[in-house]
Amino acid sequence: MSLTSFIKLFMPKDKIFYTLFEEVASTLSEMADTFFKAVSDSDPKITEQYLRKIEDLEHKNDETTHKIFIELGRNFITPFDREDIHALATALDDVADYIWGSSKRMLNYSIDHGDNITKEYAQIFLKATKALGTAIKELRDMKDLRAVTESCVLINSLENEADELLDSAMMHLFNSSIDPVELIKKKDLYEMLEIVTDKCEDAANVVETIIIKYS
Amino acid sequence: MSLTSFIKLFMPKDKIFYTLFEEVASTLSEMADTFFKAVSDSDPKITEQYLRKIEDLEHKNDETTHKIFIELGRNFITPFDREDIHALATALDDVADYIWGSSKRMLNYSIDHGDNITKEYAQIFLKATKALGTAIKELRDMKDLRAVTESCVLINSLENEADELLDSAMMHLFNSSIDPVELIKKKDLYEMLEIVTDKCEDAANVVETIIIKYS
Amino acid sequence: MSLTSFIKLFMPKDKIFYTLFEEVASTLSEMADTFFKAVSDSDPKITEQYLRKIEDLEHKNDETTHKIFIELGRNFITPFDREDIHALATALDDVADYIWGSSKRMLNYSIDHGDNITKEYAQIFLKATKALGTAIKELRDMKDLRAVTESCVLINSLENEADELLDSAMMHLFNSSIDPVELIKKKDLYEMLEIVTDKCEDAANVVETIIIKYS
Repeated sequence: MSLTSFIKLFMPKDKIFYTLFEEVASTLSEMADTFFKAVSDSDPKITEQYLRKIEDLEHKNDETTHKIFIELGRNFITPFDREDIHALATALDDVADYIWGSSKRMLNYSIDHGDNITKEYAQIFLKATKALGTAIKELRDMKDLRAVTESCVLINSLENEADELLDSAMMHLFNSSIDPVELIKKKDLYEMLEIVTDKCEDAANVVETIIIKYS
Repeated sequence: MSLTSFIKLFMPKDKIFYTLFEEVASTLSEMADTFFKAVSDSDPKITEQYLRKIEDLEHKNDETTHKIFIELGRNFITPFDREDIHALATALDDVADYIWGSSKRMLNYSIDHGDNITKEYAQIFLKATKALGTAIKELRDMKDLRAVTESCVLINSLENEADELLDSAMMHLFNSSIDPVELIKKKDLYEMLEIVTDKCEDAANVVETIIIKYS
Repeated sequence: MSLTSFIKLFMPKDKIFYTLFEEVASTLSEMADTFFKAVSDSDPKITEQYLRKIEDLEHKNDETTHKIFIELGRNFITPFDREDIHALATALDDVADYIWGSSKRMLNYSIDHGDNITKEYAQIFLKATKALGTAIKELRDMKDLRAVTESCVLINSLENEADELLDSAMMHLFNSSIDPVELIKKKDLYEMLEIVTDKCEDAANVVETIIIKYS
């Protein structure tokens, strides 16, 4: 019997991690949804309201992530490897941090409405956080591994899409005769938006690692 | 008996990690002190002297951190979990790296004196490194856990303060009619100063993890 | 018998990790070589061709890195500590990512030929990836530990060289009367080039950790 099989015997005892990860996934979806609303509205005041709501969601997620680390310190037996729980919680927390970071950048830089690039990123976030939700939900019973794999593959392709979006946005920015300060603002925002999908991919990679070990 | 209790039996044998971490904490305090002196002086030559002294302190800290990793490779028995020692050493080394990184940015960008924002950061660093020193000292006998927790809470609130300082500084920068190249210099400096407190928080989080496991 | 000695008994069974790491090292050398050719050529079209070839090499390396993680999930017995394999694969993958990232920055920012700074970085990359190749090859039989240590020391000194190159390049940039948008382009490129050597150093540090444990 392998060490992981041995640990599996103890799995039913501790479901708290699944519940906490599902809570994180749900908050991330809400953040993506709120960001989409923020950058889709043409009224700067409504944009600002939604961006500020993202801060509350980020705080909420911080608390859930903190609970995961507390449980990790308390439980000797965990449903999957400790380092994977740690890595997954960290990656998901990073997703939240960078969605809020992007929103804060808009607020701090007085970017009061979403442009086309930002809207495209927002749509990618909706899809990526939904896929993360599916993958995380399936971790609980490990029955539909194909659904997990498909979600992870989708997240990877969304990250590629975001990458290409950044490339074309940067090429466009540097070939425009935009004012340097405006260029700095846009460049900083786009770069941070792209990191959101990197972090989704990091999370998906951890999920894949877990799946490989337990399947 | 839990695994950690079992390891605890062996603790008295190896105190080297405590000594090395205390040495790191002491160097970090000295770095914060030197940075404060650098940005408080109105004479560019004195500012430069202090900034260059920070490089020496960073090298000194690199050596201590290297010793920690060497000991970690040599010792099978460690006073707390190997991954926590590794994470703590890395986070503390990052604090040193970013204090020096900020100083180097001032030197490279010919920012020859501290402005109000930089001075506020310097004061935050003094408080945060002092709190790290307290937390690390208490790791040795684990008697005054409240002192550790209070230090970690303080570091968290200092990180929030630094975050808000960055937000207001950026809003101010982008709303001023500053020359773009000057804006780039200031923005780069402020962003790196803020990372110093992120790294202090990372270190405090590791200390909290250790406390939770052993209390 | 220590845990590591115990694990060593099982080493002969699994050589796949050595083979995969050697494949990574070989791809990194090819990337450095291609980057050197890209920035050495005065014809923008040839520069672009070489930069685009680096993307293919980065994809190739992604696949090898993925295989390492798959094997890590599958194998309970590994030739050296799991966390070291993970850290080494990650650090080496980062080297590839940042060589490609630098190349992409040149393409996106329409920097169509290498300047003196970029050429100096390219030469550092050639030396650093060669040293990584030597260090990784020696991991297989652990016979010539001096060669490993020398390679790691060389990589550390190359990282210092790259650091100083960045410092002088930044000082030069900020003291020139360069157009702000051009300054942003150069600054971004130089900073990313410097990270390549940081990642080489990270990889060398992991190799050193492994050597210390097994010698």
